[in-house]
Amino acid sequence: MSEHTVSSYDEELTAIAGCIAEMGGLAETTVTNAVSALVTQDLELARATIKQDGRLDELLGEIEVKLVEIIARRQPMGGDLREIMAAGRISNDLERVGDLAKNVAKRVIAIDSDLKSKKLAIGVEHITELALGQLKNVLDAYTKQDAEAARQVREADSEVDAIYTSLFRELLTYMMEDPRNITQCAHLLFCAKNIERIGDHATNIAENVYYMVTGERLPEDRPKVDETGVVNA
Amino acid sequence: MSEHTVSSYDEELTAIAGCIAEMGGLAETTVTNAVSALVTQDLELARATIKQDGRLDELLGEIEVKLVEIIARRQPMGGDLREIMAAGRISNDLERVGDLAKNVAKRVIAIDSDLKSKKLAIGVEHITELALGQLKNVLDAYTKQDAEAARQVREADSEVDAIYTSLFRELLTYMMEDPRNITQCAHLLFCAKNIERIGDHATNIAENVYYMVTGERLPEDRPKVDETGVVNA
Repeated sequence: MSEHTVSSYDEELTAIAGCIAEMGGLAETTVTNAVSALVTQDLELARATIKQDGRLDELLGEIEVKLVEIIARRQPMGGDLREIMAAGRISNDLERVGDLAKNVAKRVIAIDSDLKSKKLAIGVEHITELALGQLKNVLDAYTKQDAEAARQVREADSEVDAIYTSLFRELLTYMMEDPRNITQCAHLLFCAKNIERIGDHATNIAENVYYMVTGERLPEDRPKVDETGVVNA
Repeated sequence: MSEHTVSSYDEELTAIAGCIAEMGGLAETTVTNAVSALVTQDLELARATIKQDGRLDELLGEIEVKLVEIIARRQPMGGDLREIMAAGRISNDLERVGDLAKNVAKRVIAIDSDLKSKKLAIGVEHITELALGQLKNVLDAYTKQDAEAARQVREADSEVDAIYTSLFRELLTYMMEDPRNITQCAHLLFCAKNIERIGDHATNIAENVYYMVTGERLPEDRPKVDETGVVNA
């Protein structure tokens, strides 16, 4: 294989990693804007966030085309193949993160704007900080090909789950206290769940980064308890 | 290309379609069992359903490996490439259907068993029948490569959405009537949403079948209103 061919292969892989980085940045912005719109009851920002999500779908499509081309042209093996498979899975996770954020933005419009909601939404803001931190850390781990950092992201997901479980219970309490809170809190329950699932996608990405870098799977998922109280072995 | 090569290529494509059919059947069973466990408060069935989901993850992994092999070996173009891309996307959707059903099964265990819940869960049973019908129809459309049937599945998704919106409101009413219903109904809200999203996955599959068969995208999504009351353009 000529030097030129090798270099161009690297360029192709770098271009794919660049698309993933673009998707990652966009996914983070979408989540930030959706939850900011929720907490400040900013309907304009919510509408803009809903529109923004389309770009993630486009990028996913572009990455798929690039991946098929590179597989067909290069017949990658070993670490290169793992890198390509990881890119496919990670881009899927990032597109799903965008969908979840879009759903939060849609609920901003559904929740009638009143002062009470701002107080009730604060818990969602808190879990979002954690989930966004997870997303940022795992995207850094991907860029730096850092398996240990990826492992730590998966480890830290239990914190997001714990916050979610307590938020779930808190929102139910608000519902029980005053039936007028019920509709709003129902939407906030879904918002909180969406953010918790963004944490799960960060975990998926972490597992794929770890496998991409090391060629080995992380040991079985730790036992995980969610708000359903069921251990998810 | 020799006759033999062509035949073997077809065999590879048929094997992939066979895996998709297996995933489809398993996804349908998982949904049926999860909701049956919910309505009859059958904890044993719920636990068995949670375990069953692992097989869908395995099949997804097997399909991915097959797809990469076939792309690397055959450099598919045109309709063959569309078939392969569709298989990748459809298998992802089916794996997600299994995850959603698993989440319903976990909530069966979380909901304290009492007679009231059976009544409240009936609405979930109804939307499930519709969503399962959608899933069955779109898998038939895939097997028969029937673009028109796929188009009809996408069209019919608005019915699932309408039932979901009315179920969402009904469950909120039960919560407002009696605070003792709140925890159970919160879980049922998530169950209903999961089933509605299974309908969305059937729609995704329909769009992929249509594109696979015709090489053309279905026209822009119809405007869609969900329980958030926001038109999803």
